Amino acid sequence: MTTPTLVTLEDIRAAARRLHGGIVRTPLVPAQWGDPARPLWIKPESLQVIGAFKVRGALNAVGRIDESVRSRGVVAYSSGNHAQAVAYAAATFGITAQIVMPRETPDIKVRKTRAYGAEVVLCDAGQRETVAAELVERTGATLVPPFDHPDVIAGQGTIGLEIAEDLPDVANVLVPVSGGGLASGIGTAVKALCPRAQIFGVEPELAADTAAGLQAGHRVSMPVADRNRTIADGLRSEPSALTFAHLQQVLSGVLTVTEDEIRSAVRELTFKAQLVSEPSGAVALAAYRRHPLPPGPTVIILSGGNVEPALLRDILFDQSAAEDQRH
Amino acid sequence: MTTPTLVTLEDIRAAARRLHGGIVRTPLVPAQWGDPARPLWIKPESLQVIGAFKVRGALNAVGRIDESVRSRGVVAYSSGNHAQAVAYAAATFGITAQIVMPRETPDIKVRKTRAYGAEVVLCDAGQRETVAAELVERTGATLVPPFDHPDVIAGQGTIGLEIAEDLPDVANVLVPVSGGGLASGIGTAVKALCPRAQIFGVEPELAADTAAGLQAGHRVSMPVADRNRTIADGLRSEPSALTFAHLQQVLSGVLTVTEDEIRSAVRELTFKAQLVSEPSGAVALAAYRRHPLPPGPTVIILSGGNVEPALLRDILFDQSAAEDQRH
Repeated sequence: MTTPTLVTLEDIRAAARRLHGGIVRTPLVPAQWGDPARPLWIKPESLQVIGAFKVRGALNAVGRIDESVRSRGVVAYSSGNHAQAVAYAAATFGITAQIVMPRETPDIKVRKTRAYGAEVVLCDAGQRETVAAELVERTGATLVPPFDHPDVIAGQGTIGLEIAEDLPDVANVLVPVSGGGLASGIGTAVKALCPRAQIFGVEPELAADTAAGLQAGHRVSMPVADRNRTIADGLRSEPSALTFAHLQQVLSGVLTVTEDEIRSAVRELTFKAQLVSEPSGAVALAAYRRHPLPPGPTVIILSGGNVEPALLRDILFDQSAAEDQRH
Repeated sequence: MTTPTLVTLEDIRAAARRLHGGIVRTPLVPAQWGDPARPLWIKPESLQVIGAFKVRGALNAVGRIDESVRSRGVVAYSSGNHAQAVAYAAATFGITAQIVMPRETPDIKVRKTRAYGAEVVLCDAGQRETVAAELVERTGATLVPPFDHPDVIAGQGTIGLEIAEDLPDVANVLVPVSGGGLASGIGTAVKALCPRAQIFGVEPELAADTAAGLQAGHRVSMPVADRNRTIADGLRSEPSALTFAHLQQVLSGVLTVTEDEIRSAVRELTFKAQLVSEPSGAVALAAYRRHPLPPGPTVIILSGGNVEPALLRDILFDQSAAEDQRH
């Protein structure tokens, strides 16, 4: 087994130059209601164009494709934020995008992706990768993977540059982990610029494959049916060899959170920070609340805010009364 | 009647230097779902420390008080965002704050203000100004008014500097108007730096005293019982002579919106922009949706996000079904 080549600070700085003006330079929002020993700052990537950080990696990856190749378009498979991110990036570069989605994808996600001008290709469950590969073969388009690519990791890493610039004495950065591209990129940038900072991944207890993997020293797979139990639908993927190698390098550990803690964190973000979060976007706050962290300024990544209205209603209002009574 | 001295661009630039590092430098959030002829940008002041823009004016005004005087503390009367803004500013400077509130103020607002270390002085309805004046007389503290002061206007104006810096070709800026400090400051800065931009005030139809006043050429007062009908509880004040003089100078007009349009805009901000808005904070989006504007890049000010959970639930979920059926 060969060790993959890791993304460098210079790769991430090049990505930042490429993205400049094309993304929202999100602020660090101070949360006065945090633990005074660990002043809390929120990085609201929910404010990006498509409502999630994914647009950084997609824009960088599409921007890095050689122009003569890029003109043939891009392909992605995703039913989540990556679909919209690639659709948006393709529109930015004036090229076609074909996004492969399972037939059972909620109609609203299909429509949102089409709204950016992408063609949505519906397929049977479990066939996404095969169908995408066929499209690439047939059209000469380039596949943009959701996390398993250095350019995607470098794009997400620009968040880390911004944190280091805005809060150079940051002590802890808490990052949701699914495929691991976000934590790989942020961790690489922050560890290079703020060597004393600690980067913690965060996973739902129900999809804690990376927590298990880092402990074991190698990737550990969980059955997809198990991972699919969590309400955090953006955190059901597992790292690739490439992202896992980064995570081994940059993470001080992975913190896990329960489903109730995730719901509670969504409520806290809504009512105290005025920020709408999808469940996956709230796990870092949940971990901040649950786990004892080293003292010092702490940043949580709010990775995205795309949540169905019915689910938001359920989390904000239907559960809260019951839980308040329990506690 | 003498013409008041107006705040200048230089006053606002001085305020920006004073506030640097003490406030959130809010981004312009692009809203892809706007009218393509009037690309829509949101300035989310809901992300400020106290959840509203008021902290800018309060920090600037408290910072401008001579240090020997400032040490005697500050006084304010408010049951809204200004109360928390002055409490926060006083804490920042390490001085005492006494905030006068009517006895019927919701307990949650009293507690939030106390949480910043301020002393809350409850009084009978209609007695706020008298009680505040007595406190000033007795203690030598300085009164920080919510809008009727050049330093408060200059502080709010720093939002305009940021807009001009981020979007120099802005065509329209839509600003909620109550006492008029926010629109006075933003208008002064943007008109100075982007002379072709037009600044529009926005009011609820139920509290459209400034719309009437600008048309009449002098301030027009509406009975407070009438103004209190709007759900936008932050927009029930009327301009002072000082702010009205600014508004006459900088506004191209005042746009009005209905209560249903305000509720609809709160939903749009929540579900499309991932931003929680109080009703007063959503009127600029409501006006963008309702009124034909000159073409070109358009900024709406989301002035604040402090909304009671029960009211938010009502706006987001209880009304939407009924209204969707109506339309």
